[in-house]
Amino acid sequence: MTAQPVFALTPGEPAGIGPDLCLLLAGQAQPHPFVAIASLALLGERALQRALNVELIPVGPGQWPKKAAPAGSLYVWDTPLRAPVSAGQLDAANAAYVLETLTRAGQGCLAGDFAGMITAPVHKGVINDAGIAFSGHTEFLADLTGTEQVVMMLATRGLRVALVTTHLPLREVADAITAERLTRVTRILHADLRDKFGIVRPRILVCGLNPHAGEGGHLGREEIQVIEPTLEQLRAEGIDLIGPLPADTLFTPKHLEQCDAVLAMYHDQGLPVLKYKGFGAAVNVTLGLPIIRTSVDHGTALDLAGSGRIDSGSLAVALETAYQMAEASVARR
Amino acid sequence: MTAQPVFALTPGEPAGIGPDLCLLLAGQAQPHPFVAIASLALLGERALQRALNVELIPVGPGQWPKKAAPAGSLYVWDTPLRAPVSAGQLDAANAAYVLETLTRAGQGCLAGDFAGMITAPVHKGVINDAGIAFSGHTEFLADLTGTEQVVMMLATRGLRVALVTTHLPLREVADAITAERLTRVTRILHADLRDKFGIVRPRILVCGLNPHAGEGGHLGREEIQVIEPTLEQLRAEGIDLIGPLPADTLFTPKHLEQCDAVLAMYHDQGLPVLKYKGFGAAVNVTLGLPIIRTSVDHGTALDLAGSGRIDSGSLAVALETAYQMAEASVARR
Repeated sequence: MTAQPVFALTPGEPAGIGPDLCLLLAGQAQPHPFVAIASLALLGERALQRALNVELIPVGPGQWPKKAAPAGSLYVWDTPLRAPVSAGQLDAANAAYVLETLTRAGQGCLAGDFAGMITAPVHKGVINDAGIAFSGHTEFLADLTGTEQVVMMLATRGLRVALVTTHLPLREVADAITAERLTRVTRILHADLRDKFGIVRPRILVCGLNPHAGEGGHLGREEIQVIEPTLEQLRAEGIDLIGPLPADTLFTPKHLEQCDAVLAMYHDQGLPVLKYKGFGAAVNVTLGLPIIRTSVDHGTALDLAGSGRIDSGSLAVALETAYQMAEASVARR
Repeated sequence: MTAQPVFALTPGEPAGIGPDLCLLLAGQAQPHPFVAIASLALLGERALQRALNVELIPVGPGQWPKKAAPAGSLYVWDTPLRAPVSAGQLDAANAAYVLETLTRAGQGCLAGDFAGMITAPVHKGVINDAGIAFSGHTEFLADLTGTEQVVMMLATRGLRVALVTTHLPLREVADAITAERLTRVTRILHADLRDKFGIVRPRILVCGLNPHAGEGGHLGREEIQVIEPTLEQLRAEGIDLIGPLPADTLFTPKHLEQCDAVLAMYHDQGLPVLKYKGFGAAVNVTLGLPIIRTSVDHGTALDLAGSGRIDSGSLAVALETAYQMAEASVARR
């Protein structure tokens, strides 16, 4: 990594608000240089549509910026569209464009050109409509980097929530909480809190699976049969774990103040509180990758593209988090 | 109901913090009279132990108070203990005492002596240890009042969350979300928001069961097969329902500002946010009963009984909520 790390930013779906958010960010001074991997033409048109005065500065391999762009300007690694874009109108013809921006960012991170990548939302449906199997950024980047297990973590100022299971129907969750999965996820969470967030001895609060964490077996036995023995083994490896605790009393200051992250067993157990607390300023971090990747926590908002009625809060936190992770990673080396 | 309604307060487990909380409340002026249904001797001893100067005023059938007790005094309907109590020490011998206080309160509400009842925590385990089948206040009061279906709702200032399922192992939740149950629960929630909370046209936000509310069937089909058609039928009855919405984006100001209550499908989907938002000031309301019943949202805290390190915030909100419900119920008649 160079003295001044450079970050990659992918605006994602060209018909969504990703390009608008990048242009909005360009108006703000940043501590580090970042490069938008996108179509110059698209960004130029969207700036014109919104009457934003943003200077687009072409960069590319071998010509990475040495310092942060001045406020009002944006470094762009031009990546041509496959078809013209109208804000709000999906077009499967551009699915290959979207994936190319992600590939460039991910490979650039692996090659050391970028210290990390920050992603704005893609639209899964239109990529699949183009005949390309795609289940999300996270899985795409896991494949690109040859990573077997990744962990989804959402973070906002003062709270981090990682998930043991993510996008599973609720009825499949209980069977998916195996000792093996819980072990892999917890180890990754612990290692990345230490290595990418610079927390010397991370403390992790673990939710139970059942209401009241099973209430001694009266409301489910997974805590007794799976979760408690697995946490005990992980503690023997030196991982500092508290729980399993009832999810409805865990998210209170008394508990949260003493931990670095919460590990929830499933999506709707952990994310409603996180998004309630952090609304508009939450970031999605993929743990377990050999690269740093953060993302906004919202969708493409097709109806708002080009409108100006957007809030770059989540993208700003995604950048801020990537910067912090890169600094912690360097400090650790 | 008399012009000045009288409320019943049950301190619950005598070895827990319930008696302490009642004594703490006695120090604060209240807008309405309430009667603690408990052992005079117990309250006297606990006051002495804590060096609290509280005047205990005996009342009983035919001699209900006409006005709120002056600050520093507490109306008590003496209900004798079965065995002496040491703070923090459970004793199965007093299980019958605890149930007698609940019976007196519930029957007094049915008889019109009380406008509503407010319950401090009981200890389920010790009542069961006494050989009495007991699964909680809610079920006990449902039996006492001959009510088939009740609905658990937690509330704090600015947010109410009702549950379709409550204390079920997570793996049983999906099958428990039937059209029949969802219909009954929603009707009760709607009727009680109107009749006991005085909301003319309640708006209810309904969570999906699966992450992202099933994402169009990709993450579970219960929304399509059960929840959506049921909500459609209920809308045809004139109930104002929004949803099903993803739980992780529903708990945000944009949605919450436009509703009177959230209906969550299960315990850990709805209560972590409610308790995060309302910690120390949340109240549990049982809907569907022919009487008004509110409760604290915490447990017996045996380790804090007699210590003074307690917070009566939740009990104060439970009283405040019962008062509001009684006023709304009267206004509606």
